[in-house]
Order: sequence, then structure tokens, then C-alpha cells
Amino acid sequence: MSKVDLLGRRNFIKGMGAAAGVAIASPAMAVSEKADGVKWDKEVEVLIIGSGFAGLAAAIEATRKGAKDVHIFEKMSYFGGNSAINGGLFAAPGTPMQKKEGVEDSVDRMVADQLKSGRGIADEALLRHVASHAVEALQMTIDAGAEFHPYLQQLGGHSVARTYQTTVSCGAGITQPLYKECKKLGVHTHNRSKFEGFLVGAKGEVVGVKMRQNYHFGEDQPGKVVNIRAKRGVIMATGGFAQNVDLRMAQDPTLTSEVGCTNAPGATGEGMYEMFRLGAIPVHLAHIQSGPWASPDEGGFGYVSNYSIYNFPHSMAINRLTGKRFMNEIADRKTRADAELACRDEQGNPLPPILITSYKDSKKHPNTKKVIKYNVGWKFDTIEELAKHFEVPLKPLKAQIEEYNSYVKSGEDKQFGKNMTKAKDKYIEAPFTVVRLWPKVHYCQGGVQVNTKAEVKDSFTGKPIPGLYAAGEVCGGIHGVSRLGSCSIPECMVMGMTAARSIMKA
Amino acid sequence: MSKVDLLGRRNFIKGMGAAAGVAIASPAMAVSEKADGVKWDKEVEVLIIGSGFAGLAAAIEATRKGAKDVHIFEKMSYFGGNSAINGGLFAAPGTPMQKKEGVEDSVDRMVADQLKSGRGIADEALLRHVASHAVEALQMTIDAGAEFHPYLQQLGGHSVARTYQTTVSCGAGITQPLYKECKKLGVHTHNRSKFEGFLVGAKGEVVGVKMRQNYHFGEDQPGKVVNIRAKRGVIMATGGFAQNVDLRMAQDPTLTSEVGCTNAPGATGEGMYEMFRLGAIPVHLAHIQSGPWASPDEGGFGYVSNYSIYNFPHSMAINRLTGKRFMNEIADRKTRADAELACRDEQGNPLPPILITSYKDSKKHPNTKKVIKYNVGWKFDTIEELAKHFEVPLKPLKAQIEEYNSYVKSGEDKQFGKNMTKAKDKYIEAPFTVVRLWPKVHYCQGGVQVNTKAEVKDSFTGKPIPGLYAAGEVCGGIHGVSRLGSCSIPECMVMGMTAARSIMKA
Repeated sequence: MSKVDLLGRRNFIKGMGAAAGVAIASPAMAVSEKADGVKWDKEVEVLIIGSGFAGLAAAIEATRKGAKDVHIFEKMSYFGGNSAINGGLFAAPGTPMQKKEGVEDSVDRMVADQLKSGRGIADEALLRHVASHAVEALQMTIDAGAEFHPYLQQLGGHSVARTYQTTVSCGAGITQPLYKECKKLGVHTHNRSKFEGFLVGAKGEVVGVKMRQNYHFGEDQPGKVVNIRAKRGVIMATGGFAQNVDLRMAQDPTLTSEVGCTNAPGATGEGMYEMFRLGAIPVHLAHIQSGPWASPDEGGFGYVSNYSIYNFPHSMAINRLTGKRFMNEIADRKTRADAELACRDEQGNPLPPILITSYKDSKKHPNTKKVIKYNVGWKFDTIEELAKHFEVPLKPLKAQIEEYNSYVKSGEDKQFGKNMTKAKDKYIEAPFTVVRLWPKVHYCQGGVQVNTKAEVKDSFTGKPIPGLYAAGEVCGGIHGVSRLGSCSIPECMVMGMTAARSIMKA
Repeated sequence: MSKVDLLGRRNFIKGMGAAAGVAIASPAMAVSEKADGVKWDKEVEVLIIGSGFAGLAAAIEATRKGAKDVHIFEKMSYFGGNSAINGGLFAAPGTPMQKKEGVEDSVDRMVADQLKSGRGIADEALLRHVASHAVEALQMTIDAGAEFHPYLQQLGGHSVARTYQTTVSCGAGITQPLYKECKKLGVHTHNRSKFEGFLVGAKGEVVGVKMRQNYHFGEDQPGKVVNIRAKRGVIMATGGFAQNVDLRMAQDPTLTSEVGCTNAPGATGEGMYEMFRLGAIPVHLAHIQSGPWASPDEGGFGYVSNYSIYNFPHSMAINRLTGKRFMNEIADRKTRADAELACRDEQGNPLPPILITSYKDSKKHPNTKKVIKYNVGWKFDTIEELAKHFEVPLKPLKAQIEEYNSYVKSGEDKQFGKNMTKAKDKYIEAPFTVVRLWPKVHYCQGGVQVNTKAEVKDSFTGKPIPGLYAAGEVCGGIHGVSRLGSCSIPECMVMGMTAARSIMKA
């Protein structure tokens, strides 16, 4: 838990009793409480916590299914959560763009790719559920006004090109249209509203929440806590915990505050922990993903991430110590992040590898100009300049380029078995664009266990906790050890929609 | 959660209100409750749950530190828990036996071996704490009357021989003397006593537990629930969850009920889950260890496990499809289990590999006779008979034996880098003893996060939950991805002792 939030929680505990007129919660006791005797300050039909992809999709779908009084609560001052600042990449099998580009794909194929990256412990039923509804979710974003590049990308670990990307190359290209759609549909949205725990009925069902109003993230807890009754139930779409340094270090002591992170600051995981206190089953928390496309030369997701995601298929990643390639540039994220982290100088210190792309091919991506302008990427006219700048041994580097180009020609990568389809005719030749690579904490595979109805299982009964649903990164288990890129947005959207359908049926 | 226990829990919920006079707990609400207004049926000084290595060591140490009224509660009819049925293997650095055998070792070296097997995510501070106190814990077992073989073993992943084993080759060789010592010291022990939840004070401190008396494991819940006050606090030594098929499948869907398990039936994890409900941090639950020394030809830990643990250093593990070795026979457990699981026939079906040992060397282990007698191991006079029996291609097998024996001679394994120290002069030659290998679920690396005082951290405050301590397999994080063999007993014992010291100081 980040220091900031920790302080907040402590102050909440002190202040809550007086503010809300309920018993004082103690740190070690579950923060959730029995609703018996609670004075309700407000009553809503569907209560959604979090305004990222999952929360927004849930709100739209609940309204479409007939809900009249849907409320989204967001702890930050802005809406969109961590969803607003990622690459806006959306994988789906069997899309119109795949037909246009002649790509053969299917739900089975997408699931098979994901199972492989999950290394044996992914949840096949959940993957299949999401892949089966991914096109429908993509349609929801398009109907709301999201715009996508007119081409597909083939991301690491995907056996075919199946990834749409927003024209703004950012998740906000989806969250903003969805948010507008919510407003159009009459969904009530509340920012600066912090979830403080569940209120639980006599049969163990979630009947409402405690919500701090007028909350300012990062400041001492102001605002009043109110008790909100949720007639149909609560959908938790609170995201991951990549920004909670203490808790990610509990899983992996190497993920200190020194390690870069692509996430929005609000990704601190309280919603998930509160569900564990209610009895939800923790799954795969140990599997925290680092993005292999990030740069050590800028903060967060930055400009390089999208640049390199786009360019990996027709680029060479080079170990600066050897001048040679060291990985399949479109392997899954874990494979690549592990390979990059192994790039070290002779003393064992990190030596961020470089990604070399022909300038002519790289410049098709809108970020290329920015990458060069902001000095987080560099253009070189000759291989000699490039080698000198990064202190790469020239001779092996030249030999590597020659060898790699022979794979471009033959279509077969004899070094790392990279799929060369998207590299066709894209030889590595001067002038070059180069960025440095170093993994950043990006995504939490772990979270609460859910089923294909987005219901949250209880660890003692093995049955769903009534009135509680969860969707998006706060859930765990679906992706196994390593999630494939562009598979989070379809998951968030589909599971958000699924939660809404379940809550409207319950 | 096993079906049996699930039923039990449901019935507990129904019956509890009437029996104990407290509010009826609902399945989804935390089972722990505020102690305010509870009628105490009993009061003790130190309350320990679980009677394996950790619980017994805690009880002895608490008594030595001055506690007058120490109580151990055990849910099964017998004492010793899962600790009683393992291999009785105890690793410690800098022991008298190492001096006798001329083995150079240190706390640093043992920690380094464990960090390697932990694959970057082990908790170094905890490993160091345990290794530093391992000799002291070993002494406690000897003082209580435990007897050990007069030689050391070098187990997989250990860079030197540092493992003692009880003369009965079983954990009961330690739990029984410790139990007797407890009785001698006046520790009160209660079997058929099932932990049903914490009772928590106004400041969030654990002040007692709800305990079902006269509990019969596997039967519909009989017995009365009483409220027991713990003046100094509660030590949770409740073990792992390897026998809880639903919950292990939540982490790894391949670990179905069809997969063998070496654990005692009581290893179902309720104590751990109850701590999560209280706010403890779940760590590394996804890392469940399978024992690579187990046999598919017998149930549970059986006879083969100890047999093969002893014989691995001077044996060859052979893939029956190829007739060749496929792993370093003394690599860490995960490396070997993964390698064994990859042994498949041409259709991809499991093809358990075989471990070939010279009969002359194998017969030094007491289990060899039993292994052959009970038909879970076989003796062959010639390599031809052996190859025919297991349908192994003869020519490559003969070549492999010749090659392996050259490593025995040179002391250098050119195939898999096995440390050949313990294989010296032990050539593979007829007659042979052979067993089949297939991994069984053995140990949960995951559990609640603790510090080197055996205190349990709260996920919101980041501080210890007052009055609560945990020790042994119920804790997570110390070993990282994969625990080395014979490192659980020292951990359980040292952390049990540590919990006792902390509780007596608090």
C-alpha cells in the first residue's frame, strides 16, 4: 500500500465513527460490517465502483438491460481510471478488419494463444467466455464513438494479427466515448468517491457500501462517509494494485519503488483486499506482469511503449554487450521481460537493450516524431554512429543485421522462431530509429476469483457471495502466469457487461 | 475446500448461534467476530492451533520462556498433523555432523541455495532468520529425544550435504518426541478441536478464538463451540492447503482430485483463509510444489519417496521414450517435477520416467526391501530385462549408462551439471533397482505474510495484527517459487519458536 493511501486509511478509521454514525472499525477487523441497523444515506439500483473499461461497460449494459438508476463511483477526480492511460489495444477474433486483411482467426485460436502464455494455469472457461464476446464488446466501443486505426497489429504471443488500436493510441480513446455514452444513457457518475467497505446483510449478501464523498487522493482523508444501499448489488471494477509498492513487494521483493510502473496512481488495490476480507479467494497474486516495451528514458507508459509495440514485428532487439539479438521480438510479455532483465554488463548491472528499426518503417507510427523530439529515441544515419552511441560492438552487430535480413527475405527466423509475416519486405537498413528497452510493472494477473457470470466465489462455501460481482483487473486467474497484450480491454469490457447481465437477472 | 469440510462449515453456521450464544455468522461475512459481549467459556495464556512441527515447537518454547498455561488445539483425532507423515528431513548449516563429514557450510550458503530455488521472489530476511536458528531448532528435537541417521544427505538444489533424517525416515520421529516433551512440560493438548474463527477486541487485536469441541473430521459437525480467551495471543500453526482440491485448483486448474497428494487429509487451509478474512496478506498462493520423488505406483508419500530422495545422488533418471537422462537428478524440486511432467509418449500421454540405481547402493536404504516387497519398485539382474520390462530402447539406454558412468569417474556431469560428489565410486551396474517417478502435490509455498517475529501483517495498515502469530506452512513468501527439500522442518520449528518468543515478549 502506498504511503499516501496508508495514511488515508488510518485517518478514515479514526474519523469514520463520528462521520457516519456506525461502529468504529479497527484496522485488523474486517472493515466491512453488518448492515443491520445502519442508517442508509442513499439508495441506488446498481452500484458500480471504478470508472475504467469494466465499470463503464457494466453501466452501459445494465442500463440497456433495463436498469433505471445506475451509479458509478470513482475515487479519483477524473474518470477512466488506469484504463485511460494504456495503449488502447483491443484483441478480438473474427472481426471485420481481419476479414478485410485476410487473417484467419477464431475464438479457439485466440484462447489457444492465451493458454500458452498462461503457462498451464490460465482459466480456460473465462478466456473462452471473453473471446466469445469480444466482438460484441468491440462493437459497444464503436457504437459509443471510439475510433480505431484502419489496420490490425500482431502483438507478442498472438499467432495472428487481431489487435485494433484507437486512433489516439490510448485507452482514453475508449473510456471517453464510453463515459459520454453513460451520461447520454442517464448513468449517474460520482468522482472523488472512495469505497470504504461493504455493508452485509443477514444472509451474508452484499447490500451496500460505505462511501467517502469529496475524497482527495493523496491528501489526508476529508469528506463524509455515507452508507449507500445497492438494491440489486455491487459491481467491483476497481482495477489492479501495481501502484501499491508494499503489496507488490509482498509478492515480488524485487518490485521496489525504484522499479518503473506504467499505471495510474490510483491502482492501489483496496477494493481487492476488501473482497478478501469478505471471503473472496485470492488467485495468482504472485504473477505481476512487466511490460517489455517500456523505456528507461521516460516515466510511466510514455511515448516509447506504443512506439515499440507497433515496431517490434519489423525490428531487431539487440543486447548491447554482444551486439546480437537475444529474444523473439514478438514473444509473449513475460518471455521478453525476462530476456531484457537478463541484459547486463560484465559487472551484472542493468544494460538496457536497444530496439533497432528502419526509420522508413518506424515513421509510419505517430509516436516516432515525439520519441525523437523528446530525446527518448534517436535517429542514426549509419550503423557506425549507432554502434558508437550505444557502445555496441560493431562487427557482430553488422553481422546480426545481415543475418536478420536474410530471415526477412526467407520468412523464417532461424535464431528465435519469430513469426516474420509482419516483417515482410521490411529490411533493417539505414537510417535507423532506436529506443532503449527496460520492463516496467504494468499489470496484475492476480485478484479475486470469479466465474463466467462475474460472480465472486467465497473461500468457505465455494459459492458466489450474493450481491457481489467483479470485473476487470481486480479479478485473478483468467490469464495465468502472463497475460497477452491487448487482451485486457476485451476482458474488462466483456466481464463488465457480464456482471451487468448477471446483476439484472439476480 | 474438500466436500466433507464444506458440509461441516455449513452445519457449523447453522448450529453455532444456539451452541455458543453469539450472533449467527453468515457464509459471506467474515466468520471472525468482535469479542465485545462474548461469554468466555475458557481462558488460557498461550493458544496454539495445530500440532505439527510449528505448533509443538511453539508450545515448548513458550513454556521455556515462562508461560504457565499453554494449550495446543488439533482438529484431527491424532496429534502431529501433516508433519508426522513426511520424510523427517532437517536441513541445517554448520552442524556437528557436517564437521564430522568435513562439509563446509554456512548460513550464507544455505540462504544462497534457497534464494536460487526461490527464483528471485523468496524472502531473504526470513530465510536468513530460519537458517541462523536451524541448529538451535535441531537441538530442540534432539533434546526431546529425536534420533537421526548417522550420515548426512545432499538433497536436490542444496550445494552441500546438510540434511539430517530421522532414523524412522519419517516426520513422526520428530513430532512424537516433541509431543512427549510438551506433555512433560505440562502443555495442555486437545484433539478433535476445530478452529472456527477469531474473536477480536476493540482495537482489532485477536483476543481469542471460537473452538468446536469433540469434532470428528469428515463427519457432519458434532460438538459444541466454545469461546476461548487467549491472554497473550494466538499462534496459528495450521499448515498448508494441498488437500483442498477446490482451492488448489483455483491456483492451478491442473491440480484436480486425480493428481496424487502426499499430505495428511487435514491439510485443508481453513486457518489461512480465516486470517485472510481478518486482513492478512495472501502471498504466493499460486506456487504449489509437487514432489519429484513420488511414485505413481502407490498412494501418498509412500515408500518410494524416501527411497528416491536417498538414491537420487547416485542414480540415473531415464525418459522411457528415449532411453536417455532428461534432468539433473538433484536439481531443485520444481526443475525436476517440471522435467518429469514433460515425459510423455508420442500421443502426449504421461509416461512416468524411471530411476535406475545399482542394487548394491540402493540396498543401504531401509525402504529398498519394502519398495520391492510391495511391488512399487523392481530388481533386475540385467539391463536387457530392465529395458524390456519398461519398454525402453536398449541401445541408447546402454550408451547412456556408459556415458553416465564416465561422469561418475571424472566427477563431472557433462549432460546436466549434476554435483557428482555423493556419486563417487557409485557406478551404475547390474543388478539394478528401479522405481517409477511422477510428481505429487506436496507443499504450498503460499500463505499469509509474516515478518521475522512471526507477526502477521495487515493489508491495510501494513502493521502486525496484534495478538496474532503464524508459523509453518500456513505462512507464505519465505521460499518463493520453489522450496528446497528438508527446509520446511527447520522453518516450522524456528518460526514456531520465534512466535513463542514474540508472544512472551508482547
